[in-house]
Amino acid sequence: MPKPRQIKIADTAGFCFGVKRAVNLANGAPEKFPGSQISTLGPIIHNPQVVNQLAEIGVKPVELSHAPEPGVVIIRSHGITKKLLYELKQRPDLTLVDATCPFVRRAQEIVAEMSAAGYQVIIIGEPDHPEVAGLISYGDPQNTQVITSRNDIPATLFNSRRPSRIALLAQTTQSQQLYNEIATALLTIKGELRCFNTICTATSGRQSEALKLAQECDCMLIIGGRNSANTNRLYELSKEKQPDTYHIETVEDMNNEWFSGKRTIGISAGASTPQWLIDEVVKKLGNSEP
Amino acid sequence: MPKPRQIKIADTAGFCFGVKRAVNLANGAPEKFPGSQISTLGPIIHNPQVVNQLAEIGVKPVELSHAPEPGVVIIRSHGITKKLLYELKQRPDLTLVDATCPFVRRAQEIVAEMSAAGYQVIIIGEPDHPEVAGLISYGDPQNTQVITSRNDIPATLFNSRRPSRIALLAQTTQSQQLYNEIATALLTIKGELRCFNTICTATSGRQSEALKLAQECDCMLIIGGRNSANTNRLYELSKEKQPDTYHIETVEDMNNEWFSGKRTIGISAGASTPQWLIDEVVKKLGNSEP
Repeated sequence: MPKPRQIKIADTAGFCFGVKRAVNLANGAPEKFPGSQISTLGPIIHNPQVVNQLAEIGVKPVELSHAPEPGVVIIRSHGITKKLLYELKQRPDLTLVDATCPFVRRAQEIVAEMSAAGYQVIIIGEPDHPEVAGLISYGDPQNTQVITSRNDIPATLFNSRRPSRIALLAQTTQSQQLYNEIATALLTIKGELRCFNTICTATSGRQSEALKLAQECDCMLIIGGRNSANTNRLYELSKEKQPDTYHIETVEDMNNEWFSGKRTIGISAGASTPQWLIDEVVKKLGNSEP
Repeated sequence: MPKPRQIKIADTAGFCFGVKRAVNLANGAPEKFPGSQISTLGPIIHNPQVVNQLAEIGVKPVELSHAPEPGVVIIRSHGITKKLLYELKQRPDLTLVDATCPFVRRAQEIVAEMSAAGYQVIIIGEPDHPEVAGLISYGDPQNTQVITSRNDIPATLFNSRRPSRIALLAQTTQSQQLYNEIATALLTIKGELRCFNTICTATSGRQSEALKLAQECDCMLIIGGRNSANTNRLYELSKEKQPDTYHIETVEDMNNEWFSGKRTIGISAGASTPQWLIDEVVKKLGNSEP
């Protein structure tokens, strides 16, 4: 009798604190504001399945570039730009529900404080990610920039004869590895380097556990939205350790051939992946033959 | 005809800015304060030959632990503790000449500011070195400490669930390598890490050049006081790349056997080594057979 297949689910898979909070605020809005038109500025989190569920109860995303209709407007977990927040606050016909993740809010405050204090502010992140667009908007464009790799560090910082004052932070879902690499490169610069490790513990913990699982298992499944940056990063990290790593959004994406002969299958999921999506995947795996 | 021996002297060998300044102040004191008793608190720099020269013009070191005689007191380049400075300033019979290296003074200010602001202040340095004794005296003992290696980082910092606020700095003559190693270890701690690269550019430049020379030469001579921490560090760094590295204080310490068959000899010297000591060594080497 063949040994049954083992499925290892990461303790850290799925919703983080900030996403849970944002989804709860959105789920509770129809009851809290009966009769109001309720919208989220862009998808509330980067998970199409959750966004669809919310749409069914009347909470629909509106484009960031369009002025929202009168009613309740929910600011999503990634936050928005300083300018947009200001504009929304000027409108008496809007009720704002701020679901910005408190860790993202803290990072926005760091950018504002450091830029105002004259530091050269360096944000490690994806320039097109909404969280990063929000972060950078809190700094003075003269001294605030986003970089994606060590090579993006301005050469002038290394060549400067005057001591520099640099403040470093990261998109909350960045990889700790990249953060360390860039900070280490900046350490040789004369002057002051102020490192704010704004990567949230949920993210770094999820990454560490996925890396560990990837080494223990024959195959890895990473569940999450294709538009979710932290899910994509989780997939890439896992794939480095376990080439048989697959990124799926739902059970529909699963291919039984992947699991043929695999004895141990590891599962993790991005910060915006709801528990029910993870449960469905585990159920389908449990029903399949090893 | 054998090719003549090549002697490569590091551009960065010898007196740094702070030492030059301190020795100039000491040399000028007898003329500036005629008839006064002039003393330095401890040897003005860590070089016995320079200290002896100054003694000949009447500038003599007194023990740090003894209250100096009335007259002119020169505070040496390494600086002194906050308490001692306060006590000296209370004495109307003393004229103070502060030869503390401005880079050391800046590091003292950083310790004071960061400790007062509630940071956990970590100083990389030798606990017994006078500069370090001075630095730590500017912080609150509750939150200021000296560490010599990565292993000395308190484990509580890594285990803390609350984000930490750490300020890191180094004795101005520490190795950049050790600084990077400790800072990199601290980067994984959640919260804020404020790195002040207080290693002076003269030190880091001298170290880089010595390492480069050690790789190019058959033999290395490092000239400087046996009590000079930065000279000892220079010697150790060089010896890692070139086992035939020798630490000498003066020409008297040279042994001709070291140079037998050596074609290229590299020379560097600590921050407290005067030019004339370097010149004597070069002269003696030039006169010897390859």
